[in-house]
Amino acid sequence: MQKESTYQKVASHEAIKGEFHKCLLLYSGGLDTSVMLTWIQENYACEVVALTIDIGQTADNLESIKQKALNLGAKEAIVYDAKDEFADILLVEAIKANADYQGGYALSTPLGRVMISKVATKIAQQYGCEVIAHGCTGKGNDQVRFEGYLTTLNPKIKTIAPVREWSMGRQEEIEYAEKHGIPVKQKKDRPYSYDENMWGNTGEGGEIEDPKLIPPLKNILQWCKLPEESPDQEEIIEIEFCQGVPISLNGQKMKLSELIMRCNTLGGLHGVGVFHLIEDRIVGLKVRGVYENPGASILISAHKKLEQLVSTREENELKSFIDNKWAYLTYGAKWYDPVMYHIHAYTNNQNKKVTGKVKIKLFKGNITVVALESPYSLFNADLATFEKNATFNQNASAGFIEIYNLAQKTAFNVYNFEDELFKN
Amino acid sequence: MQKESTYQKVASHEAIKGEFHKCLLLYSGGLDTSVMLTWIQENYACEVVALTIDIGQTADNLESIKQKALNLGAKEAIVYDAKDEFADILLVEAIKANADYQGGYALSTPLGRVMISKVATKIAQQYGCEVIAHGCTGKGNDQVRFEGYLTTLNPKIKTIAPVREWSMGRQEEIEYAEKHGIPVKQKKDRPYSYDENMWGNTGEGGEIEDPKLIPPLKNILQWCKLPEESPDQEEIIEIEFCQGVPISLNGQKMKLSELIMRCNTLGGLHGVGVFHLIEDRIVGLKVRGVYENPGASILISAHKKLEQLVSTREENELKSFIDNKWAYLTYGAKWYDPVMYHIHAYTNNQNKKVTGKVKIKLFKGNITVVALESPYSLFNADLATFEKNATFNQNASAGFIEIYNLAQKTAFNVYNFEDELFKN
Amino acid sequence: MQKESTYQKVASHEAIKGEFHKCLLLYSGGLDTSVMLTWIQENYACEVVALTIDIGQTADNLESIKQKALNLGAKEAIVYDAKDEFADILLVEAIKANADYQGGYALSTPLGRVMISKVATKIAQQYGCEVIAHGCTGKGNDQVRFEGYLTTLNPKIKTIAPVREWSMGRQEEIEYAEKHGIPVKQKKDRPYSYDENMWGNTGEGGEIEDPKLIPPLKNILQWCKLPEESPDQEEIIEIEFCQGVPISLNGQKMKLSELIMRCNTLGGLHGVGVFHLIEDRIVGLKVRGVYENPGASILISAHKKLEQLVSTREENELKSFIDNKWAYLTYGAKWYDPVMYHIHAYTNNQNKKVTGKVKIKLFKGNITVVALESPYSLFNADLATFEKNATFNQNASAGFIEIYNLAQKTAFNVYNFEDELFKN
Amino acid sequence: MQKESTYQKVASHEAIKGEFHKCLLLYSGGLDTSVMLTWIQENYACEVVALTIDIGQTADNLESIKQKALNLGAKEAIVYDAKDEFADILLVEAIKANADYQGGYALSTPLGRVMISKVATKIAQQYGCEVIAHGCTGKGNDQVRFEGYLTTLNPKIKTIAPVREWSMGRQEEIEYAEKHGIPVKQKKDRPYSYDENMWGNTGEGGEIEDPKLIPPLKNILQWCKLPEESPDQEEIIEIEFCQGVPISLNGQKMKLSELIMRCNTLGGLHGVGVFHLIEDRIVGLKVRGVYENPGASILISAHKKLEQLVSTREENELKSFIDNKWAYLTYGAKWYDPVMYHIHAYTNNQNKKVTGKVKIKLFKGNITVVALESPYSLFNADLATFEKNATFNQNASAGFIEIYNLAQKTAFNVYNFEDELFKN
Repeated sequence: MQKESTYQKVASHEAIKGEFHKCLLLYSGGLDTSVMLTWIQENYACEVVALTIDIGQTADNLESIKQKALNLGAKEAIVYDAKDEFADILLVEAIKANADYQGGYALSTPLGRVMISKVATKIAQQYGCEVIAHGCTGKGNDQVRFEGYLTTLNPKIKTIAPVREWSMGRQEEIEYAEKHGIPVKQKKDRPYSYDENMWGNTGEGGEIEDPKLIPPLKNILQWCKLPEESPDQEEIIEIEFCQGVPISLNGQKMKLSELIMRCNTLGGLHGVGVFHLIEDRIVGLKVRGVYENPGASILISAHKKLEQLVSTREENELKSFIDNKWAYLTYGAKWYDPVMYHIHAYTNNQNKKVTGKVKIKLFKGNITVVALESPYSLFNADLATFEKNATFNQNASAGFIEIYNLAQKTAFNVYNFEDELFKN
Repeated sequence: MQKESTYQKVASHEAIKGEFHKCLLLYSGGLDTSVMLTWIQENYACEVVALTIDIGQTADNLESIKQKALNLGAKEAIVYDAKDEFADILLVEAIKANADYQGGYALSTPLGRVMISKVATKIAQQYGCEVIAHGCTGKGNDQVRFEGYLTTLNPKIKTIAPVREWSMGRQEEIEYAEKHGIPVKQKKDRPYSYDENMWGNTGEGGEIEDPKLIPPLKNILQWCKLPEESPDQEEIIEIEFCQGVPISLNGQKMKLSELIMRCNTLGGLHGVGVFHLIEDRIVGLKVRGVYENPGASILISAHKKLEQLVSTREENELKSFIDNKWAYLTYGAKWYDPVMYHIHAYTNNQNKKVTGKVKIKLFKGNITVVALESPYSLFNADLATFEKNATFNQNASAGFIEIYNLAQKTAFNVYNFEDELFKN
Repeated sequence: MQKESTYQKVASHEAIKGEFHKCLLLYSGGLDTSVMLTWIQENYACEVVALTIDIGQTADNLESIKQKALNLGAKEAIVYDAKDEFADILLVEAIKANADYQGGYALSTPLGRVMISKVATKIAQQYGCEVIAHGCTGKGNDQVRFEGYLTTLNPKIKTIAPVREWSMGRQEEIEYAEKHGIPVKQKKDRPYSYDENMWGNTGEGGEIEDPKLIPPLKNILQWCKLPEESPDQEEIIEIEFCQGVPISLNGQKMKLSELIMRCNTLGGLHGVGVFHLIEDRIVGLKVRGVYENPGASILISAHKKLEQLVSTREENELKSFIDNKWAYLTYGAKWYDPVMYHIHAYTNNQNKKVTGKVKIKLFKGNITVVALESPYSLFNADLATFEKNATFNQNASAGFIEIYNLAQKTAFNVYNFEDELFKN
Repeated sequence: MQKESTYQKVASHEAIKGEFHKCLLLYSGGLDTSVMLTWIQENYACEVVALTIDIGQTADNLESIKQKALNLGAKEAIVYDAKDEFADILLVEAIKANADYQGGYALSTPLGRVMISKVATKIAQQYGCEVIAHGCTGKGNDQVRFEGYLTTLNPKIKTIAPVREWSMGRQEEIEYAEKHGIPVKQKKDRPYSYDENMWGNTGEGGEIEDPKLIPPLKNILQWCKLPEESPDQEEIIEIEFCQGVPISLNGQKMKLSELIMRCNTLGGLHGVGVFHLIEDRIVGLKVRGVYENPGASILISAHKKLEQLVSTREENELKSFIDNKWAYLTYGAKWYDPVMYHIHAYTNNQNKKVTGKVKIKLFKGNITVVALESPYSLFNADLATFEKNATFNQNASAGFIEIYNLAQKTAFNVYNFEDELFKN
C-alpha cells in the first residue's frame, strides 16, 4: 500500500534508523500523529514517548488523548500544562510588541511552536529521548520552527518528520490507520486543518487557500461568531495594564492566561479578531489562512493605543519599525537569534511606562478603544486646549516653522524634482 | 475691545505691514476666515483676494462663499476646482503608500494642505499677491504645513497668520464679527471644529481632545453612520486597480475623484473608516482627533491586500517601513523634501504590478477584503496545495532548515541570553 | 558702539530682565564668554556665577580661567571635574553605539553638551541660579542642545543666549572687551573656532566651511599630526573590551577616561581619526567641519569589529540601523527623548557579549583591526575551514538554495522588472 | 582513488545523469574548473561547453584559457567580454548605493556573480545547453548566488555543482588532474584562493580565515601595495560625476569600465581600499576575508560625499538605511527579488542630482575627499557663514528650540527613565 518515498536524509539533524532507542513524539491525538505513533515504532524500531502540551487549545480532551497514546503503544504518555508559562513568558512579549504579522495575525502558531519546543527539549532530556518527532509537512513553516528551535536548544537532539518522509496522502493515512487499529474520526464536511492555542486559532486548507475564492467563514470559524450573528448590543470592557502587561479585566485582577482566555470568549461572542491573510511563508510560498485571535486582537488594540498615549512621536515611529521586525523574526523561526533578545530589551524598556486603564467597545466585529488613562499620559490638557489660557506658547511657532522648513525650502529651490516629474 | 497681542514677528517669512499691497486669503467662508477678511484689510491696509479651493469638501456651497467674500470687501473672490488634481496627483500617492498615520488616519488634512498650497502659490502669482494669509492657529500642524509649503514653492512669498497674531478668543471674534457686519452662524451644540476634503473629515475640540473621555460619536460624526445604525445587510463591492490606482467600482470605470467620493458614500452608509487617534502633532503636542475616512479606508484596505498578494516577503517587509516613513513625513509637513520623491519612486515602482480586482465586504463598521485576483499574484496553487501532486519539492526542506538555522544555533550555544534572562 | 538688536524674546524659556537675580554662565575663558560675563551683569543687572566644566579639553588652564572669571566680576567661579562621569556614563554609550554621524564624526560636541547640561542643572540648583547663560550663536546646533536639555532637566530654568541677543560682530566684541578691560588674545592667523573635549576636537570657520575649498589641515589640526608627518613605523596596540567597554590598553587596566586620553595621544601621533564632514545641522544648514577624534576612532573601530565577530547576520544588520538612529538623535539634541533609553537598552543588551581583545595597527592615518579574539566569537574554525573534515554539512546546501530562492524565482517569472527596465 | 561521495540530489534544479546532453561550464582555467571539465564529461556522459567571462579580472590570459578548455575536451570554448555591461548595468548601481557590506566591502564577488549568471543564461540558450555547471563549494555564498540566479533567470535550467558532489580534497584533485593530463600549476606558498573582477579582488583561506591571526598582507595582496611601500608623495585626483555616475578622471572623459580600472591602478599604488572583514555568509558561517577594492573605495568615497552635499538631512538618514539594505540583499543573493528594483528606483531618483566634481587625496592607504563642488550643492555660504551679514534669521531660533524640544521636555518630566536607570 505504501508507495516508495523519494525522501532522502540530507540534514545532519535528521535521525537515522538504528542510531537511537527512544523517540519523543509531539502528540496531538489527531489522525496524523496517531498514525505516526505506530509508524515510528514500526519503521524506526524504537520506543515512543508521547507528549501533549496544553497551551490553551480548547478542542482537546487531554486525558483521552493520553489514553489514546498509551493504547497505540506509547511507552509513556505525558500531558504537560504550559498555559501559564506560555502566557507569562511568551505572550507578554507579543503584547509588548503589538504582535501583528502582515495585518492582524497575532502569531499564535509561531509563538506556540516556541513554547512546545522549550517544553519538548526539557521532557526529552528527562525521559532520555535522543530524538524528537513532529507532525509537520515539508512545505510549511512549522517544520522550520520545530527543527530550528529543537536543535538550537539542544544541538545534540535529532529529529524525525514522518509526514515528510512517508509517501502517504490523506487516503493512504486512513487506510494505514484502519489497518493498524487506529481510531479515525473524519470530518468530511470540513476540509480545513487547524492549529490552536490560547493566543489564536488558525485555519488552512480547502477554499481558504486560494485568494480568488471567498472563504465560507460560517463553516470555517471555530471560536468567533460572525458579526452578523453577534449581539446587537455593544459591550464596553476595561483592561488595566501594568508595565505593558494586562493585569485586570473589568476591575477584576487575574492571571494573564485567564485574562486572555476570557477575552477570547468576549471577543468571540462579538465576532472580533477574525482575519484572512495571504501570508508569506518562510519557505517562499504564499498561502491564505483564516485567523481567529479575538483575545489577542483586543489586548493588542488596547496596548497599542495606551503605548502611543505615553510615548513621544520619536518613540512611536521607531516602535512601528521594531514591532514589524519582531513580527517577521517571530514568524520566521528566529526566536532564539540573539537579535530577539535585544528587541525584547527595547520593547520591555518602553513598556515600563505602559501603565493605565483602557476602555474598549466590542460590537459586531469592531474593536474600538474609546477611552484611556495613564499616569504617564503625554496628553496635556493645558498645552493642548484651544482655549486662550493654554500654556502652549504660540509666539514660538513662526520661528519654529522658519527653521524646521529651512532644509526643505533650500533643497527644493536648488533641485526641483517636481519640475522633473512633470517634464516627463 | 481687542486686547494687545504679545505676538511678535520673528520669522523672515512673516509679512510686515506697509511692505505689501495685495494679500491672498485662503478663504473657507467660516467665521475665522470671514473675520480675517475684514481684519486684514483693517490691520494691513491692503487689498484682499479670497481663494476658496474645492478639494471635495461636502459641507460647502462654493458659490455662496464666493458671494460672501465679495460682500466682505474682497477685491476678488476665486473658487478653484482642484478635485481632479487632488485625486490624480496626490491621492494616488496616498493609495500607493497605504496612507496610515499612527493607526487608521489616511492623512486627509496633511494632503489637503499640499494641494491648497500648490494652488495658492499659482493663484498668488496670477493675481500679483505678495502675501498669503491662512486661518491656522499657533499650536497646530497646519500653520507648519502652509507656511512651509508656501515659502518652499515660492521663497519670495510672505505669509500672515492672523489667528496667531490677534488676541481674540472665540467670544471676541463673534463680537468683532457682529461689529463689522459679518454673518455669524454659531453651532453652539457642536463645539467641534472640522477639516474636510474628499479624502476624509477630521473633527477636533471639546470632548474629542481628552483621551480619558469617551467621545460622543453620535454628535461628532458628519460622514459616517454609527455601526449600530448602519444596514443589517452586508454589501460586497469590487474595486479594480491598475498599477496601484483604483480604476473601477463594481465593474464601472470612473475617474478617481468620483470613485473616492462614491466610496465615501458607500463606506459612510456602512459606518466604516472611523478612528479616534491620539496623534503626535509636529509641534510636540498630543491631541485626540476623530477621523472619518470611509472611502480612503476601503481603498487602502483593498490596495494593501492586493499589493501583498503580488509582492514577496522581502518587498512586504520593507514596504511597511517605507509606508510608515511616508506617513510620518507627509504628516510632518515634509512633502517637498526631496526624500519624498525618492519614496514615491520606490512606491510607484512596486505599484507597477499592483493590478487586479478586489472584493470587499462592508458591514457595520467592518471592511473585509474577501477575495482578490491579479495577473501578478504570487499565490501559486500548484506550489501551495496540500495535495500530493504539488510541485513544491519537500525533499529540499530538511537541508534548508539546517542551513537557515545554523547562525541561530551557533550563536545561542556560544552566548545564551536565555540563561542570562532567567539568572536575574 | 552697540547697534540695536532686532532680537525679540519669543520662547517662554528665555529669561527676562528683572525677573531673576542670579545667572549661571557656562564659562570657557575665551573672548565670547568673557565679554558675556560682563555684558550679562551690565544688561540684566544680576549676579553671575561662572561654571567651567572639565570634560577633557586639553587647551585650557582651568585655574587661570577661574581666576579670570573672578577678575571679571563673577560672584563665584566654579571648576567642575566631569571627566569620569563623561567617560563612564556617556562615552560608554557612544562606544556601544559605534558613534558615527554621517561618516566618521564620533559626536564629541553633542555628547559634551549633554554632560555640560547635566552638571549645569545640578550646579544651578546648588547655587540658587534661576537662569543659565550659554555662549552659542543663533545658527548652530549647540543652542538647541543647551536650551533643550537645560529646560528638559529642569523645566523651571530660564536661559540667556547673549550672542543671539546682542548685535556685536567679532570686531564689536573686541572693542567691547577693550573698553571693559577684558583681556583679548586674538589668534589672527587662525580664523577657526574649536570645541574640544576628550572625545574629540571640532574645528569650524574660515576655509573649513566651504566644501569647494581644500582645508589647510596643517594650520587647522590641533591634536593630530598629518599622516605625512607621522612616524614611518607602524604601532600595534591591543585593547581589551568587557561587555562593550574598553578596560585595558596594551595589557594595562585603566579607567576609561584615561584609556581614551591615551588613545588620543597614540592616535594623534599616527594621524588617525581626522575627518572633514559636510554635516547637516539641526537648524537646516549644511556646513563643513574638520573633526579630530583619534581616540574615539580607534575605540569605535575596534569595538565595531569585535561586535560583528560575536553577532549574527541578523544582529549586525539591525545594529547598523540602530546605531545610525542613535547618531542622528544624539546629534539632533534628543538625548533625553525616551526613545534613546530604549535604544540604550538595545545596545547594552547586545554589548553584554562584546568581550575580548582587539589588536589594532596604527600607521600614517590608517586604523586597521588586524586580529580579534573573544570567548563569544561566532567564528567556528571547524565549520568554516575549506578542509575536508569540516563539520559543515554540505549536503544540505542544494535544498537550502532551492527554498531560499523560491520566492525570488516565482516573483521574477510572474512580473519581470528587468524586461520593464530595458523596454524603456 | 575517488572516494564515494555522500552527496545526494535533493533540489529539483540539480541535473541528473542521463537527463541532459550538453552542459555549459563556467570555466576559469584554474585547477578546480579544469578538473571539472574532464570530470563532468566522464561522470555525466555529456558534452561540455566552456564559458569564460571577462569582467575585468587581471590575472587571466583569456586566450590561453580558451585553448586549455579545448585541449581538455570542451566541445566549444567561449570567451565573452562583459566588462562594459558589468560596469554600465551593475556597477553603476553599486556606486549609487555606496556599496558597503559590513564595513568596506564593495561587493565585487556578489555583483560579479550576477553578471556571470546573466551571461551564462544567455549563452546556455544560444548553445542549447540544458545544464550549467559551476565550481563553487557547498559551504560558500557563490553556490547560492549561481543556482539562485540561474534558475530565476531560466526556471528550466538545471545545475551541477561538482565540487559539492565529488569527494575530492585538494590532494585528490591534483592526483585526478595528473592522471587525466590536466596541467597543474600549484602555488604552494600562497594557500589562498582569490576571486577577482574589476570591482575588487577577494582573498580567502589559510591564515586569512581565522580572526585571531594577523593576516600576512604582504603575501596576500595582489592589487595593492602596502601603505608602507606606497609613494611618499600624495596624489590628488579629480572625479566628475553626472547623475551619480563617474564620467571623468582628472578632467578626461572616459567610459566607466576604464575609469574604474584606472582607479584600481591609482588606488593600488597608494595602497587604499584594503579591508579585512569577518563577514556573515548567507549559509550562516562567519569567515574572515581580505578584500582589495581600491577603485571601488575611491569612487564610493567620492560619491558618498557628493551625495551628502546635495541631499537633505532626511535624505541622508534614510539613504544610509536603504544602502545598508541594498548591501545585505546584494550579498544575500537577492538581486532579482523585486524589492531590489524598487530600491534601485529610489537610489536612481536621488542620484539624479549627484552631479559635480570631487577632489580626492590618495596617500599611503588614506582616501580623503578634500573638496567638492556641485550645481546642486546645499551648502549655502550666505546662510552658513559666521559673518554678520548672513541671511540666516537667528531671531527664529529660540522659538524653534521651544517647540522642537517640547515633546522631549514633556515626556522626560512625566516618566523619568534617567532616575529609573540610576535607581538600579
